[in-house]
Amino acid sequence: MTTLPFTKGHGTRNDFVILDDPQGAIDLTEELVRALTDRRSGVGADGVIRVMRAQLSEEVRDLVTRDPRVEWFMDYRNADGSIASMCGNGVRVFARFLEERKGVTALGAAYPIATRAGIRTIRKIGDWYEVGMGPAQFLDDTAARTTGHDATVTIPMQPHEPARPGISVSMGNPHTVVALPDHDTLAELDLTRSPGVDPVPVHGTNVEFVVPDGVDTAADGTVVGRASMRVYERGVGETQSCGTGACAAAAALHRWAGESSPRTWTITVPGGRVQVTLGTHEVLLAGPAELVADGHITITSLNV
Amino acid sequence: MTTLPFTKGHGTRNDFVILDDPQGAIDLTEELVRALTDRRSGVGADGVIRVMRAQLSEEVRDLVTRDPRVEWFMDYRNADGSIASMCGNGVRVFARFLEERKGVTALGAAYPIATRAGIRTIRKIGDWYEVGMGPAQFLDDTAARTTGHDATVTIPMQPHEPARPGISVSMGNPHTVVALPDHDTLAELDLTRSPGVDPVPVHGTNVEFVVPDGVDTAADGTVVGRASMRVYERGVGETQSCGTGACAAAAALHRWAGESSPRTWTITVPGGRVQVTLGTHEVLLAGPAELVADGHITITSLNV
Repeated sequence: MTTLPFTKGHGTRNDFVILDDPQGAIDLTEELVRALTDRRSGVGADGVIRVMRAQLSEEVRDLVTRDPRVEWFMDYRNADGSIASMCGNGVRVFARFLEERKGVTALGAAYPIATRAGIRTIRKIGDWYEVGMGPAQFLDDTAARTTGHDATVTIPMQPHEPARPGISVSMGNPHTVVALPDHDTLAELDLTRSPGVDPVPVHGTNVEFVVPDGVDTAADGTVVGRASMRVYERGVGETQSCGTGACAAAAALHRWAGESSPRTWTITVPGGRVQVTLGTHEVLLAGPAELVADGHITITSLNV
Repeated sequence: MTTLPFTKGHGTRNDFVILDDPQGAIDLTEELVRALTDRRSGVGADGVIRVMRAQLSEEVRDLVTRDPRVEWFMDYRNADGSIASMCGNGVRVFARFLEERKGVTALGAAYPIATRAGIRTIRKIGDWYEVGMGPAQFLDDTAARTTGHDATVTIPMQPHEPARPGISVSMGNPHTVVALPDHDTLAELDLTRSPGVDPVPVHGTNVEFVVPDGVDTAADGTVVGRASMRVYERGVGETQSCGTGACAAAAALHRWAGESSPRTWTITVPGGRVQVTLGTHEVLLAGPAELVADGHITITSLNV
């Protein structure tokens, strides 16, 4: 029986157990991750974030060599215990933890952190955190370039709904974005079952349903698009927020609306609101992050 | 912004946020309950248990007059903030909390506690806690007495499945118990939608699907029945355990199997195993209880 200190946080209701483990002293096995993330017999979360000194991790030490300013490693694990490279909502919660518990300040300046997907840069803007998410890549498919779609998506149990065109975008992980005509259609989607994507992607795909909500012009003249989104994550089901999904959605919306359309999109998801900027080199994702609770969990058995 | 100490526990994966509040000092509003039980922006649980001195609660003070041994009040709230009278799995977690944090010992002896459903008696048996749950009552329906059922239940999205006979049992709350022929049928049930019960009960009903697993004879000669169960709770969906549901299931199994059949049943639910004894005056429910974590939650906003 061991007792482990933890913090719980969330970003647009994507939630995490944070372990403050600078030295990497915790034996973070798959079983331990599952015990922590179990929503009934554990703390409960979508994933675990270990906060570790990058220099002390063999996995990311080379990133410190590349940029000596890299001090912290976001060691992210999925709820099932598997290792993941990054999490777009999790990285903001990681940043908030660094700020509140590790004395890291990012307001006005950017700083780099280490992830398994490489170095990521965090900036604090007001209460929000903005993170570089790497580039969005469309499949190099002639049909998609011409028609704006390379797949069709059907909604299960709504046989009266037609198959809808979708476009495939990679943010490191695969997404298929589908535009819907209005909010009623979005609200009525039955996402208790996986949407059918044709052709079937080899490694599956997340599916984002979006409704464009119009365009605003900010005080500084910047044009910002607005859209609403629901997401079905592969292997998970409908979730309240998906960071890379919001990035993929903004990329698709921009392609459909043409080069003169906004490069910044505010995306409303069931869990809240995030902002995506399609930069020259990469996509920037901004959003809120909250630390909710601190405590100790008693691990009595790892047979979860 | 307030910070509130909490403990998290579960009984057969029915989980609870426990507030140690002997004086009733916390203003336990619906909003606060929802903030605590929210699985992403809070601690997350099926309900909240406030541990309060019975003498200090106007709601249950009369129970102390009736039995001066009543020291503690289990102030139970559903996750949505509504007030509930009792929770069969929660009361065991309450008992474990009293034992570990309040110096209450029940091993070998029974002690009374106050609930909104009246006085309940707790006994510790080994590592398990047994609680008196009040009587099981069948609807006084002639058809049910003769045929063993008074309703039919259909499983949505499995149109090839026939409507099955069910029997209505009240444990204070309404249940409809349906026997299935084998474990495959039980495992394949699609309970992502509410089963259809005919006639439709006025206040809805929980639906229990059970498969009898045989009968064991214990070392002391006691005959114990075994059954597996899945439950669809009204207004909630499929859950991993339902204490009153297990009691209703045992009552129905005993009626179907006849007066000579076991009065004690071990019921395996997705969240674990409980044991139900059909006593002369009331039904006794026994099962495990775990305390998982202790911590402090920061309540930043009650607009949940």
